[in-house]
Amino acid sequence: MDSAYKKLVKLFTRQYRLTHMGAMIGWDEAVMMPAGGGEARGKAMAELALISHELFANDDSIADLLAAASEAADPSDQWHVASIKTMKRQWQQTVCLPADLVEAKSLASTKCEQAWRHMRGENDWKNFKPIFTEVVNLTRKEAEIRSGVNGTSKYNALLDLYEPGQKSENIDIVFAQLKAFLPQLIQEIAEKQKTATCIQPVGPFTSESQKALGLKIMAQIGFDFDHGRLDVSHHPFCGGVPEDVRITTRYSEDDFVESIMGVIHESGHASYEQGLPAAYRELPVGCANGLGMHESQSLIFEMQICRSPEFISFLTPWIIEHFGQQGDAKINKAALTPDNIQAIYLQVKPDFIRVNADEVTYPCHVILRYEIEKALIEGAIEVADIPELWNEKMETYLRLSTKGNYKDGCMQDVHWPSGALGYFPTYTLGAMNAAQLFAAMQKALPQVKADIKAGDFSALRQWLKENVWSQASLHSIEDLMAQATGEPLNGKYFETHLRQRYL
Amino acid sequence: MDSAYKKLVKLFTRQYRLTHMGAMIGWDEAVMMPAGGGEARGKAMAELALISHELFANDDSIADLLAAASEAADPSDQWHVASIKTMKRQWQQTVCLPADLVEAKSLASTKCEQAWRHMRGENDWKNFKPIFTEVVNLTRKEAEIRSGVNGTSKYNALLDLYEPGQKSENIDIVFAQLKAFLPQLIQEIAEKQKTATCIQPVGPFTSESQKALGLKIMAQIGFDFDHGRLDVSHHPFCGGVPEDVRITTRYSEDDFVESIMGVIHESGHASYEQGLPAAYRELPVGCANGLGMHESQSLIFEMQICRSPEFISFLTPWIIEHFGQQGDAKINKAALTPDNIQAIYLQVKPDFIRVNADEVTYPCHVILRYEIEKALIEGAIEVADIPELWNEKMETYLRLSTKGNYKDGCMQDVHWPSGALGYFPTYTLGAMNAAQLFAAMQKALPQVKADIKAGDFSALRQWLKENVWSQASLHSIEDLMAQATGEPLNGKYFETHLRQRYL
Repeated sequence: MDSAYKKLVKLFTRQYRLTHMGAMIGWDEAVMMPAGGGEARGKAMAELALISHELFANDDSIADLLAAASEAADPSDQWHVASIKTMKRQWQQTVCLPADLVEAKSLASTKCEQAWRHMRGENDWKNFKPIFTEVVNLTRKEAEIRSGVNGTSKYNALLDLYEPGQKSENIDIVFAQLKAFLPQLIQEIAEKQKTATCIQPVGPFTSESQKALGLKIMAQIGFDFDHGRLDVSHHPFCGGVPEDVRITTRYSEDDFVESIMGVIHESGHASYEQGLPAAYRELPVGCANGLGMHESQSLIFEMQICRSPEFISFLTPWIIEHFGQQGDAKINKAALTPDNIQAIYLQVKPDFIRVNADEVTYPCHVILRYEIEKALIEGAIEVADIPELWNEKMETYLRLSTKGNYKDGCMQDVHWPSGALGYFPTYTLGAMNAAQLFAAMQKALPQVKADIKAGDFSALRQWLKENVWSQASLHSIEDLMAQATGEPLNGKYFETHLRQRYL
Repeated sequence: MDSAYKKLVKLFTRQYRLTHMGAMIGWDEAVMMPAGGGEARGKAMAELALISHELFANDDSIADLLAAASEAADPSDQWHVASIKTMKRQWQQTVCLPADLVEAKSLASTKCEQAWRHMRGENDWKNFKPIFTEVVNLTRKEAEIRSGVNGTSKYNALLDLYEPGQKSENIDIVFAQLKAFLPQLIQEIAEKQKTATCIQPVGPFTSESQKALGLKIMAQIGFDFDHGRLDVSHHPFCGGVPEDVRITTRYSEDDFVESIMGVIHESGHASYEQGLPAAYRELPVGCANGLGMHESQSLIFEMQICRSPEFISFLTPWIIEHFGQQGDAKINKAALTPDNIQAIYLQVKPDFIRVNADEVTYPCHVILRYEIEKALIEGAIEVADIPELWNEKMETYLRLSTKGNYKDGCMQDVHWPSGALGYFPTYTLGAMNAAQLFAAMQKALPQVKADIKAGDFSALRQWLKENVWSQASLHSIEDLMAQATGEPLNGKYFETHLRQRYL
């Protein structure tokens, strides 16, 4: 290892350890912290952001070290080359912002997220608006600076933080394809499902039983409990670090359906994290390759694998074991059959809430948010315009009105309050990646559906590990997809998946 | 505010926020973290220690700022003067150590603590010894450096970290007084209790009931749940920050006695933290005044207030309400009376385990550890000598043998593995402070025993808030005690308390 690279490794390892702290106090803030601790936590998190920034910004040697390391690198050592490249990317993304902006945005977004937690429930757009406007103003400033450095549009500069190399010009095309068939498809599916019977199980189903089944499924899927845990939060997420992955869910005693698939979804994210290569653990190249790939791993587990008839057939006896003696025994006897559970898990119904959406209507939620946040960042609209625009688009895409209903409209998600603008498109990129990856996996592993029916995840995990997890950020996302599936992202797989499953 | 002081405030506020992170990831490590996350956590914690160190060590302006701020300070503004003094103390304690030692000790002690967690259960002194020796060697190095800077002995230099201004010469005197009457007193009490009846309640008592009662008592005592929470850990502790105090306990379904008093004890610590003055929140002068004062607040709640007949009389109906229908109904009917519960809570019995010890035998455990750790730091003994010495002293002080029994002997506590040498004396200083403070409180509040019997903690909390909590680190510990009680620490109060309660 040349000495420049060695110094860089030391420096980026420090950053990784700061990220560890941030991930853990962030998890704690969402899962454990009493509300009164919020202000102090916000300050601590802003301090951490600042220190992480200073570690790069106050070190004048990094540019030279990166140049020297690039110079010294053996071009055939692709991990080494990618390591330097991803270091450079992280460094540039950090140092381009002034310290006061980093601190101000961290403070404003923690404050806004904490306000959102109670204001959403109160449908209080009026008081939320000024707090959120502060976040938007700082994010616009951030976008402007990043845009100047990257030579790309302001929105692209933010998008790149979550999806390296992605551009809105490309997303516009992909989303236009979706918009071309989705509204029609949703109507066709609605028509078809109108006559199908689907019996809703009747609770209550205890949180304890739901948790027990969740843990059992996690173990079956391959979650490593020595390096992670399951907890409860208001908004389910996957946090922590690869060495200690923290996933969360939430339980409604009326319904076990959501928590089970929620746990599977987050376990998909966790599998990616836990499967990252230990050899590059503390370096940027060893981290997950953007949020679209991350979402593809949660969705390949949730949508492709676990909502399939094969997995539902495996899962049904477990569901009966855990919930068969609870709630309305008569109705549930009829409800807890493989066919009916499958029908429940494939219901398509336009709904206000993104996180409750089925995989067919989900992209409409994402496209709506993408269009609004892009206009907001580019300055075409202001915060005050959001509710009306939201309502218009909901009417167009899903035939639902959110007039005056902020909590189920533009206040429903944590992303914007927490300062994450440019993030939403990755959900639908993830859904498309997942469909394409699963199609490739089926070609490579002809027995995979039989495996799933038997609850055997070993071969499919091995395939994902080889093709995605162990690759970390070695390649561009485009190249990663091409190597794993034989072609770059192709939306056709997602469309085919939807048509085959739902029509 | 002069400009030098302003700059210092900014700097020390940053340190405070780093402490927030350390407190939270430390809490998480003990309460939430899966074992496999330990190595990465250790590295993150060492990084934090290093960053905190660098923030001072790499800033050449601090010495001048402290001098300028002292110069500019109005001597009659005692908070301002004390603020500068406590800043100076924290800065000196930090910068005197080289960065590599800070990191090495943090890594070694996290590793040792994690090893201790399983090796203790396995009674594995052999494999623990080399890991612990590394911690001792680094702590000796630390003591040597601190000693050189402070002009005090090596052990005193460590003691000062936990109990500002305290010296082993003084502790030797205080502990000699205890040793002069305790062994005899223990025998007298044993003799007296031999003929008394004390019925042990027979479980199982569910953890849920124990937790519910614990939470109810916490609320009654005045714990602020908007700024703190109760969880479970292997070793009970009070962690977190004043804005978000994290206390823990542990539940044994055989016995509710320990968890209840454990919760009360930690709630005493929490009351101190939650009662610190908000105006000085992020500065050294606004922090608790050493661990002896801290322990005095846990012990004034646990030992002075809540093991009294008055509180037991208040508590008994709650105990019956929570546990009356569990375990052996017949035995428990006889056991759950105020007199019998009082008898349980005042049982004196020499035991191997410090944390299980009653308040009479407890100082023997502390004196034993103090004598050993002092000899260890001063170089009079080596790690290999500890088990034999431990056994000898246990035989002398408590007539118990720990030969070959490391897990109930020198491996029982987390302090040494985690690198905290010089800490133990503060437990007994705390017990003496608590007795003296409670005596003063009774003079000031003649109705306090009636209040306690009625479960009314308002006046006594107010007295503690005025005399201890709100004072934070404004005065030296000696002055704080003198102002609150009319005289500096006087061991007689503790002796009197023990004789009155137990003979």
